[in-house]
Amino acid sequence: MRLSGGVESALHCCVVLTASAAPVPAARLAELHGVSATYLAKQLQALSRAGLMQSVQGKSGGYVLTRSATEITVLDVVEAIEGTRSTFICTEIRQRGPLARPQEACAAPCPIARTMYAADRAWRAALREVTIADLSGAVGEYDGGVLSRIGAWLLSPQP
Amino acid sequence: MRLSGGVESALHCCVVLTASAAPVPAARLAELHGVSATYLAKQLQALSRAGLMQSVQGKSGGYVLTRSATEITVLDVVEAIEGTRSTFICTEIRQRGPLARPQEACAAPCPIARTMYAADRAWRAALREVTIADLSGAVGEYDGGVLSRIGAWLLSPQP
Ligand code: FES
Ligand code: FES
Repeated sequence: MRLSGGVESALHCCVVLTASAAPVPAARLAELHGVSATYLAKQLQALSRAGLMQSVQGKSGGYVLTRSATEITVLDVVEAIEGTRSTFICTEIRQRGPLARPQEACAAPCPIARTMYAADRAWRAALREVTIADLSGAVGEYDGGVLSRIGAWLLSPQP
Repeated sequence: MRLSGGVESALHCCVVLTASAAPVPAARLAELHGVSATYLAKQLQALSRAGLMQSVQGKSGGYVLTRSATEITVLDVVEAIEGTRSTFICTEIRQRGPLARPQEACAAPCPIARTMYAADRAWRAALREVTIADLSGAVGEYDGGVLSRIGAWLLSPQP
């Protein structure tokens, strides 16, 4: 089970936007991260659909976060890219075969499914504990100047 | 991100084996669960490779758990099917683009990767808390007789 690569770039884009004083064009975000513009466009659109970013139109348009980075959790971003459905899908295998459990006795999930769902919730809970603001802070801690260098580069005249 | 369907049948097979007094042929396990024998063979082989089950040869041969169900965690089974690698893969996106962070400054994972790895660990920890014996007990709780019915069926003469 692997998360899509889009999660890494989506999270990096969110952190980077906290460093910019103005909207950032998608092409700049792609260039900064050394990824293709079409690839990144997909992630930015998913983030927009989830209401985390919006695209501001116009000459100095581009992407901005729609709310404070303290109010965007890592889970919000992961779910924007990966969806909110559980990582475990129960196909009700207990209702198959010669000893199939009757459907009316299957209102509650089986203990196996319950365990898998609980682990999925533990994963999401861990992702919900960290905000984009926390990540920006932590990036600043390992390299004090990096976010301001990125912020300046993002708004520097484009080639 | 989705777990493969193999996880559901692998866990159900492990629980079911706790109900059998003798080795169970793969074909019987497939029939019980209403899944194809080739599909299930793949999961049983993965469980064997991981050392959780073994195939006993001979006339009344079949699969058995290699150790007590109290010593097999749900995580053991999930990792047998899905592998042990983290669900998050960091491609070191911070080392790309015009402001690339130099490789020598990237010994430690970036805060984004750290958060994703921590959530992966939380997921695995939740799966590690529950054993196959716990699941068998919980199945017995919602239907006292089901495992003994299954155990009897597994060892009944085959058609
Ligand atoms: S029936 Fe789906 S996990 Fe048990
Ligand atoms: S460089 Fe991979 S998650 Fe930050």
